[in-house]
Amino acid sequence: MSETIGFIGLGRMGLPMARSLMEAGCRLRVYNRTPEKAAPLVARGAARVERPGDVAEPGGVVFTMVSDDRVLEAVTLGEEGLRDRLGEGGIHVSQSTIGPETARRLAKYHEEHGARYVAAPVFGKPEVAEAKKLWVCLSGDAGARERILPMVRAMGQAVYDFGEDPGAANVVKLAGNFVIAAAVEAMAEAFTLAQKNGIPREQVHELFSQTFLACPVYRNYGKLIAAEHYEPIGAVPSMIQKDMALVLDLAQASLTPMPFAGIVFDRMTATVAKGRDDIDWAGFAQEVSESAGL
Amino acid sequence: MSETIGFIGLGRMGLPMARSLMEAGCRLRVYNRTPEKAAPLVARGAARVERPGDVAEPGGVVFTMVSDDRVLEAVTLGEEGLRDRLGEGGIHVSQSTIGPETARRLAKYHEEHGARYVAAPVFGKPEVAEAKKLWVCLSGDAGARERILPMVRAMGQAVYDFGEDPGAANVVKLAGNFVIAAAVEAMAEAFTLAQKNGIPREQVHELFSQTFLACPVYRNYGKLIAAEHYEPIGAVPSMIQKDMALVLDLAQASLTPMPFAGIVFDRMTATVAKGRDDIDWAGFAQEVSESAGL
Amino acid sequence: MSETIGFIGLGRMGLPMARSLMEAGCRLRVYNRTPEKAAPLVARGAARVERPGDVAEPGGVVFTMVSDDRVLEAVTLGEEGLRDRLGEGGIHVSQSTIGPETARRLAKYHEEHGARYVAAPVFGKPEVAEAKKLWVCLSGDAGARERILPMVRAMGQAVYDFGEDPGAANVVKLAGNFVIAAAVEAMAEAFTLAQKNGIPREQVHELFSQTFLACPVYRNYGKLIAAEHYEPIGAVPSMIQKDMALVLDLAQASLTPMPFAGIVFDRMTATVAKGRDDIDWAGFAQEVSESAGL
Amino acid sequence: MSETIGFIGLGRMGLPMARSLMEAGCRLRVYNRTPEKAAPLVARGAARVERPGDVAEPGGVVFTMVSDDRVLEAVTLGEEGLRDRLGEGGIHVSQSTIGPETARRLAKYHEEHGARYVAAPVFGKPEVAEAKKLWVCLSGDAGARERILPMVRAMGQAVYDFGEDPGAANVVKLAGNFVIAAAVEAMAEAFTLAQKNGIPREQVHELFSQTFLACPVYRNYGKLIAAEHYEPIGAVPSMIQKDMALVLDLAQASLTPMPFAGIVFDRMTATVAKGRDDIDWAGFAQEVSESAGL
Repeated sequence: MSETIGFIGLGRMGLPMARSLMEAGCRLRVYNRTPEKAAPLVARGAARVERPGDVAEPGGVVFTMVSDDRVLEAVTLGEEGLRDRLGEGGIHVSQSTIGPETARRLAKYHEEHGARYVAAPVFGKPEVAEAKKLWVCLSGDAGARERILPMVRAMGQAVYDFGEDPGAANVVKLAGNFVIAAAVEAMAEAFTLAQKNGIPREQVHELFSQTFLACPVYRNYGKLIAAEHYEPIGAVPSMIQKDMALVLDLAQASLTPMPFAGIVFDRMTATVAKGRDDIDWAGFAQEVSESAGL
Repeated sequence: MSETIGFIGLGRMGLPMARSLMEAGCRLRVYNRTPEKAAPLVARGAARVERPGDVAEPGGVVFTMVSDDRVLEAVTLGEEGLRDRLGEGGIHVSQSTIGPETARRLAKYHEEHGARYVAAPVFGKPEVAEAKKLWVCLSGDAGARERILPMVRAMGQAVYDFGEDPGAANVVKLAGNFVIAAAVEAMAEAFTLAQKNGIPREQVHELFSQTFLACPVYRNYGKLIAAEHYEPIGAVPSMIQKDMALVLDLAQASLTPMPFAGIVFDRMTATVAKGRDDIDWAGFAQEVSESAGL
Repeated sequence: MSETIGFIGLGRMGLPMARSLMEAGCRLRVYNRTPEKAAPLVARGAARVERPGDVAEPGGVVFTMVSDDRVLEAVTLGEEGLRDRLGEGGIHVSQSTIGPETARRLAKYHEEHGARYVAAPVFGKPEVAEAKKLWVCLSGDAGARERILPMVRAMGQAVYDFGEDPGAANVVKLAGNFVIAAAVEAMAEAFTLAQKNGIPREQVHELFSQTFLACPVYRNYGKLIAAEHYEPIGAVPSMIQKDMALVLDLAQASLTPMPFAGIVFDRMTATVAKGRDDIDWAGFAQEVSESAGL
Repeated sequence: MSETIGFIGLGRMGLPMARSLMEAGCRLRVYNRTPEKAAPLVARGAARVERPGDVAEPGGVVFTMVSDDRVLEAVTLGEEGLRDRLGEGGIHVSQSTIGPETARRLAKYHEEHGARYVAAPVFGKPEVAEAKKLWVCLSGDAGARERILPMVRAMGQAVYDFGEDPGAANVVKLAGNFVIAAAVEAMAEAFTLAQKNGIPREQVHELFSQTFLACPVYRNYGKLIAAEHYEPIGAVPSMIQKDMALVLDLAQASLTPMPFAGIVFDRMTATVAKGRDDIDWAGFAQEVSESAGL
């Protein structure tokens, strides 16, 4: 993996992901809206460019990890975006959490210009990205998936392949974020029930997370919810509220009633409406405690 | 542990739990409403008695593992029940999933007759009980807890202690069953969303249960929900619906709003109302598929 | 209607209801836990007694309008209660909002003592009771219903008969309270949506209550919700929360999933848990505004 | 009102609304995708045109009553649409149920071409439109509202004015449709609870609709829900599901948690997913009966 690749989006997640690529031997051209964030990578030899489209070279690979569908469309289709700069044989590896329809539309666009689109959204918090332990979901053009596989492997501990549909990996990513949000609500209700009946939240968390729910989601988010201390921030509530809106959009489009999704979306909406966007998104669990008068 | 102890309730869970006690060296006097179910234990040397109260001897230990609060009250306070037969120093180890108020009432009753009550509900399916891998929650009188600790250890892989309140262990048990039920609903919604967007349920299950949700609940129940095949039966829907009713009663009594609990209770109610009580309780997940027109 | 009848329970509703009976020509023996509340009736000639059972005379009629099932059972079956004092031919007209099972149990008790039980719960706020404009639901023994019909007519503008089952009128009363509570939540969501989109709550209320929803519930409760001023108090939140608990109990016993009932119950629970029990119960609508950050 | 005006959209609602305009003295130029539907109006002297834009004349008035945002945008901005044909002083009276953002976007477009946009969505079923008894919500440019007021008055029994914001009337229309849908769910839950407790649905409907809920929504929809016979069709489920999607979009955009809206949307989604789109939309109430095993 000695080739030079592009990377757009150096936020909480993008920065360590890009670093993993460098540590695996790739040379990087990077772009970020706030250019200072590129400094740690530039210090290691990455080239910082002024416009998103400049990270691309004909036939090359570009990774994007941005905040939402709108930004992804801007860096892809905008005046200064990737557009046709990937050229014949180029690949756009799209790792943002977006709606599958956006993924399919961009895949079609690239295809019309000879390039390919691979969806590669990831599961894991920033520290997991640091540790190169992300779980990567993959879908899109078969040849392109094969070519970029070593690159995404450099970021994570496992890759799950969902086939040709460029939207598929994002459906799975949204389903996953929903299941995690539902686990947060469930723990919040359970811990609050215990607390109001005289049992410390931490003791219930300990039992759950060491036994039938001994896995990262219950262990890590459970710790925040038990302590009611929502830091450090993996993502802010408005960010995951956006994801839940995508879940509901998808549910709507595919005629899938999802009552749990409705509830967690309402919780996050309340959290954002009350101006509490400066904690980890799991902090929507506070809504549960408060509704119980705590 | 060479003493003779009593055991009431030899159902799907009670039978393997009683067997674990025998294998740890205890002699057993057993009672079950349907006497034939005692046969496997009698074959190993257990004494079968005709009335629940006859399993007790003054100062001895009696385990109960029955279907609900009403049955537990009958075998404890009924004409032919334990009543005052435990006598001074006797211990009632109550392992059924019941409401904490019933536990506290029975604890008080025993105390008035010189005996003690220990709540020891368990987590785990029948095959987990067979394997002596249950997780046991404990609460109640300190001395009694100490005395029976080796016995419940013989049934499980870990014991969690929740202190003096005889109702505490059952609060935690109910909270746990609720969190598991919420996980079932969440997986059902997620898998259905995936399926309606062209992605096999099993692939999503594989991802979840190998990564951020790699734990027994998501692995085991997830397998049933992915395959939409709800067998073998760990417990029937009406049994866990009863548990969720206890959760809602407790939520009501302690002023704890629990919207997720309301939804899963409604799902199980619909399942029972439609006469589908001959599958594993996780089969309420079918309600999700059907509401999506599958 | 010149006979002397008994009346137990002179609260916000009971007092004007008893007064209506007096104004229709009945003589009254009255009992209330707080005896001072009887003063306005005593001033008009009613006899105040010291124990609930003393309002009864053999073969006579006794009305009860108390706060819940427990109190009704106390004044009926308690040491100083009605018990067998109604005697052969006596009638207990029970107007409290209680569960149908309590009604059926008390009906059976009276029958065993030669007396009869008629359920006669009412719809309407205290001022409606003052105006003798209540709506009365009736069920129970046919002969008894016929005899007391002129009495309940003296309280209201219309009587609806639901037949022989002594529990039936209470099922309908609970269903009605639920539908009203659901209307409160629906208006709260609609008005809050309008407000957050720049439209005054009152304008939306005006439209609804003058057109397709031109009826007392939307007009009267809507006015409180539009103004977000929850006075005067018809009933406090904890009182109607108790009613919603009865609704959920009934739904549970009859295997009827009721998601709206779950939501309004949770809203009222939150209201009570936060200590806001000094406004009209429709004030649970504040939960909606607050969740929207208002 | 002797002027010639345009009318686009002659469906279940549009046809009687256009007829009301003719009966009030207006001459009409009409367009409908399925041209045969214009026949009753042509028989009365209306001129049928081939393209939507042809109903307009410079400075004139055009009404639109189409199925959704997309169709309205097509007949307004499409190649053959109204576009700039309204000219200086022209007015677009938009009566469809659409999102407020679409209304604001179209208002801006017209303004850039010298014309004005007035939102005038209506409440009432087709037979109410026939009887000229609709309730009309109005918002948009003040002068334009004044000019078209006599026209919308010819269609209805009352007009409610929500000021200058062209999106306001649609916010109110969506809020209204939501409240009606919530009333349907509430009645369905209440009637089902009664039925499962031995009380005929019709008797409960009679009580509600004659007393505290004596208004068109509870009287008319209640009749369908009590009888569980969802005809005649006012609008099909997929049509109102679309409206609820607009409600949820609006709730999302304005950070307003609306749990009842989530539930009724899920009910309608299930109804459509099961292929039951050939009854009146209130038929989503069947989901309630079925979940109770009826």
